[in-house]
Amino acid sequence: MDFLTWMSAIQRRTESALEAALPASDLSPARLHQAMRYSVLGGGKRVRPLLCHAAGAIFGAAEKVLDAPAIAVELIHAYSLVHDDMPCMDDDVLRRGKPTCHVEFDEATALLVGDALQTLAFQVLAERLPGISAPRQIEMMRLLAVASGSRGMAGGQAIDLAAVGRQLDIGELEYMHIHKTGALIRAAVLLGAHCGEASPDAMERLGRFANRIGLLFQVVDDILDAEASTATLGKTAGKDAAQNKPTYVNFLGVKEAKAMAAKLRQDAHDALAPFGNSATRLHELADFIVERTF
Amino acid sequence: MDFLTWMSAIQRRTESALEAALPASDLSPARLHQAMRYSVLGGGKRVRPLLCHAAGAIFGAAEKVLDAPAIAVELIHAYSLVHDDMPCMDDDVLRRGKPTCHVEFDEATALLVGDALQTLAFQVLAERLPGISAPRQIEMMRLLAVASGSRGMAGGQAIDLAAVGRQLDIGELEYMHIHKTGALIRAAVLLGAHCGEASPDAMERLGRFANRIGLLFQVVDDILDAEASTATLGKTAGKDAAQNKPTYVNFLGVKEAKAMAAKLRQDAHDALAPFGNSATRLHELADFIVERTF
Repeated sequence: MDFLTWMSAIQRRTESALEAALPASDLSPARLHQAMRYSVLGGGKRVRPLLCHAAGAIFGAAEKVLDAPAIAVELIHAYSLVHDDMPCMDDDVLRRGKPTCHVEFDEATALLVGDALQTLAFQVLAERLPGISAPRQIEMMRLLAVASGSRGMAGGQAIDLAAVGRQLDIGELEYMHIHKTGALIRAAVLLGAHCGEASPDAMERLGRFANRIGLLFQVVDDILDAEASTATLGKTAGKDAAQNKPTYVNFLGVKEAKAMAAKLRQDAHDALAPFGNSATRLHELADFIVERTF
Repeated sequence: MDFLTWMSAIQRRTESALEAALPASDLSPARLHQAMRYSVLGGGKRVRPLLCHAAGAIFGAAEKVLDAPAIAVELIHAYSLVHDDMPCMDDDVLRRGKPTCHVEFDEATALLVGDALQTLAFQVLAERLPGISAPRQIEMMRLLAVASGSRGMAGGQAIDLAAVGRQLDIGELEYMHIHKTGALIRAAVLLGAHCGEASPDAMERLGRFANRIGLLFQVVDDILDAEASTATLGKTAGKDAAQNKPTYVNFLGVKEAKAMAAKLRQDAHDALAPFGNSATRLHELADFIVERTF
């Protein structure tokens, strides 16, 4: 199966799994459930689920086992976008080409949507996971919690807030992104590896790969934000620069940022070397993340 | 040990356990961690931890085992208060006698505080719990997630939002409270019982007790809100009535609401009958919840 066929198959099964995990839109409280489904379904590249599946594939994990951690990570990601778009945060009106949740519904509903999507992520991981031992399942939940909380993703958003309008150095910028985007991308990769009962050594190597990919993802996002139009991006373009938010493009310029992306991409490939052909999907994903721009 | 001594001992150990679970206030991102500690520590009656410990005591569960589920539930409760107080929800400026989180810090920080407190609740339950089997621990996490999410507490808040300014009947009011406050109170009781490896039969009975206590707690809250002054309550009094929010006092008047509380209290006691003296703390807590007012 070629990469694009595989990717589209994983995206489809992720969509189905999310569809099944989200409460039906006619179930009470219906407006909340409609808003949760609006915010999660029918959009997004599903990069985190793809990373989870690709990492699990290295160790022969079954796709039906990988669905639960893949959508748990995606639900955490979706909740963070809903809250991040709110007026008191980034105040963004467009996401994935549609009005953001608080615009389409209202602020209070968007707040509850984010809250309930986070809960649902942990609920999904607490359901019976076929073929996963109970102690490993607990470790997976712990890993997702640590990656999402005040020392992970939510902490990264707090650092990002504190940085607006202030001069960061590039080390601080990296520290922010390691938390804000990196932690959850790392969780996606490691949760996939857990499903294949990866060894501690393999986990550590995949952790290194994921750290590179996390930064790569952000550098590419900054380049996209600087270069793309709003229509192509499906969210308001040029916004980070306009808000004087620190980005890699601000620090390095587009050309150097692209060189940094190329280096991260190479490092990511190198980290996967010992896995040989079993890591083909992860190699392809690393390339795909970069080739969104150039 | 008399009830007040026991209560104060559990409140103290809950405070210590929360103190230990919350990231230190000098740990990065420091402002977020300061705001998390501000919102959780040094206030609150810790009713949910008390219920958790009292339910565990029926089955001889050790207090050190009960601390984790007790604070997990309290962290969920604390996150819900922080988000509920925000301008887009109840827009309240006073909580437990102090400025609310978004007033003391800012709205974006309050949003992240609530998000990170919820994550921390699941993280606490995913740590090693001495004496709890792994499958039971997973079941406990599932129970907390279901109680907190869109079909539990968060759903109850959505129903509450939809009810403002609209005429509910008393059945709809009860439906709202069963979700908004009842679900988490029930989770506190059942998580405590899990720590003592309670039988399914005992769980079911405690579930009935908890449903009564959940409503009792709300009826008493409505009476307090109608009768108490802001100074006594530590939060803005009379606010529900002023906002035309449905309350039991609005429906029934104070006298009938008190009669309803007395009936719920009796039903709660009756549900505990088969546990005999082992349930003394739960009996005392039911009385304590009512005697806040009369």
